[in-house]
Amino acid sequence: MAPVVLLAGGTGGAKLARGLLDELGSELVVIANTGDDVELYGAYVSPDPDLVIFWLAGAIDERGWGLAGDTFAAMDQLRALGQDVWFNLGDRDLAIGLHRARRLAAGARLTEATDDIRRAFGVPARVLVPSDEPLRSWVKARGAWRPFQEFMIRDRGEGPIENIEVRGDPRPAPEALSALASARAIVIGPSNPILSIDPILAVLGEPVRSAAAPVVAVSPLVRGQVLKGPTAACLAWAGHTQDSDGIAEHYEGLIDGLIADQRTDLVTTLETDVELSTPAARRRVARAVLDFTTALA
Amino acid sequence: MAPVVLLAGGTGGAKLARGLLDELGSELVVIANTGDDVELYGAYVSPDPDLVIFWLAGAIDERGWGLAGDTFAAMDQLRALGQDVWFNLGDRDLAIGLHRARRLAAGARLTEATDDIRRAFGVPARVLVPSDEPLRSWVKARGAWRPFQEFMIRDRGEGPIENIEVRGDPRPAPEALSALASARAIVIGPSNPILSIDPILAVLGEPVRSAAAPVVAVSPLVRGQVLKGPTAACLAWAGHTQDSDGIAEHYEGLIDGLIADQRTDLVTTLETDVELSTPAARRRVARAVLDFTTALA
Repeated sequence: MAPVVLLAGGTGGAKLARGLLDELGSELVVIANTGDDVELYGAYVSPDPDLVIFWLAGAIDERGWGLAGDTFAAMDQLRALGQDVWFNLGDRDLAIGLHRARRLAAGARLTEATDDIRRAFGVPARVLVPSDEPLRSWVKARGAWRPFQEFMIRDRGEGPIENIEVRGDPRPAPEALSALASARAIVIGPSNPILSIDPILAVLGEPVRSAAAPVVAVSPLVRGQVLKGPTAACLAWAGHTQDSDGIAEHYEGLIDGLIADQRTDLVTTLETDVELSTPAARRRVARAVLDFTTALA
Repeated sequence: MAPVVLLAGGTGGAKLARGLLDELGSELVVIANTGDDVELYGAYVSPDPDLVIFWLAGAIDERGWGLAGDTFAAMDQLRALGQDVWFNLGDRDLAIGLHRARRLAAGARLTEATDDIRRAFGVPARVLVPSDEPLRSWVKARGAWRPFQEFMIRDRGEGPIENIEVRGDPRPAPEALSALASARAIVIGPSNPILSIDPILAVLGEPVRSAAAPVVAVSPLVRGQVLKGPTAACLAWAGHTQDSDGIAEHYEGLIDGLIADQRTDLVTTLETDVELSTPAARRRVARAVLDFTTALA
């Protein structure tokens, strides 16, 4: 059957991916943001695709990132050697990044290296990347431009945000294009619209717009609140209100419907609780999303 | 005071280094073989210098390599990702190799990268390398040439050995040259003469010969036996007998004395037990070596 394609950033998108996997199995395809990718310690780290894979594999740690039960001996040793370990990686997570770096150095595409990891974790749904080429989100805050991870970790994601840019001019990955073209529904996950979704749309915006499938977005706001990350500062920078109007405005011309716990007059809304903190809630929202896309088709 | 310089390969040399450290503290300088170095998983692994550092730091694991209490999560993960993990590295050991690779990539010399590690482990004696440039031991056995580590690990060091080559034409590292020139004694550790010591001598043979200090070798044979590694196959290939005559023959023209548990007529011999399995034995042999070099001076 034609796939349901989810565009996802980190935690929110990954949680919805998990709910959709329970409903769809291998009919789910996730395209995960690579604007947050970072190369360090000899590893190529792809935080959002890996977070999605770990969630889909049921292997995510309770702390919200990394693998459950992972150890941190390598980072401790790097610190003892005087390295500035500002980006923490568990030992297995480090190995994943080293594997990806090795595969890329040997000429594999990022899509292929990501698929190695997905298969090693036994995840039945494909996890794709927007492009096999570099795509990097940069943030300007307090006068200084920083790559996304440095802004988030070194600067603790502190706004106000003065500017955001997606750098690089990557071509779409063929697997991502083909998934969108054949999709029966395209779902924009409840991730940061500006820092997690826009980098994907910078590469795949046109293919999403021209796809035959209905496009719906799940709001990242729960009872008006941002659950995690700098979404509030990003919406403020983009000039959007922190509500369903703001989210619908951001995706104007792209989405056919919004799933949110608050109505907006700007687009067809499915009003429902979009909180994703339990397996049952994730599955319930996933089912609601799928029913909504069917109704819109 | 002028340093005592020890040329060392792996375990035997490292154990003697430990005994010498207890006697000499920072007056000990070790020059460790880099012919076994290997690059993999994004890391630059320098097994002999690291083994010496781990022994000097009292951090060696009981298994005889790697760090006490190290975990192996990264290698497990690489295996799960389908990599051929033929060279096992603990998580902290991997970090050490990643650090070294990073320092070298940034333009540091191997001497400097090694010194980072030595200092991180709080080792008061310097651990040097023969050259900052690549030096690689290759072994031909059963018709096939293999880099040292592949011969030792993939082929389990199985002889008969048909040929051995030290490849590369590296210049001596300035720190190694200056240590030899200022040494009050030069000690060749009880390591494999052909695969551990000859690579060092391929770079530093002339500086050792022309140094003012007496040069003594500690036999790697204990009651006629090889304790570890392919020394027997190497001596056979080199046409030496597996006894003090064979060791003295190998170092002919280079050493002023041999410390062994069996006399030879080929060179002045200090006949004493050279077994190094306990801290007391290591310190006793170290003291005997130092007294012998003083007597020869």
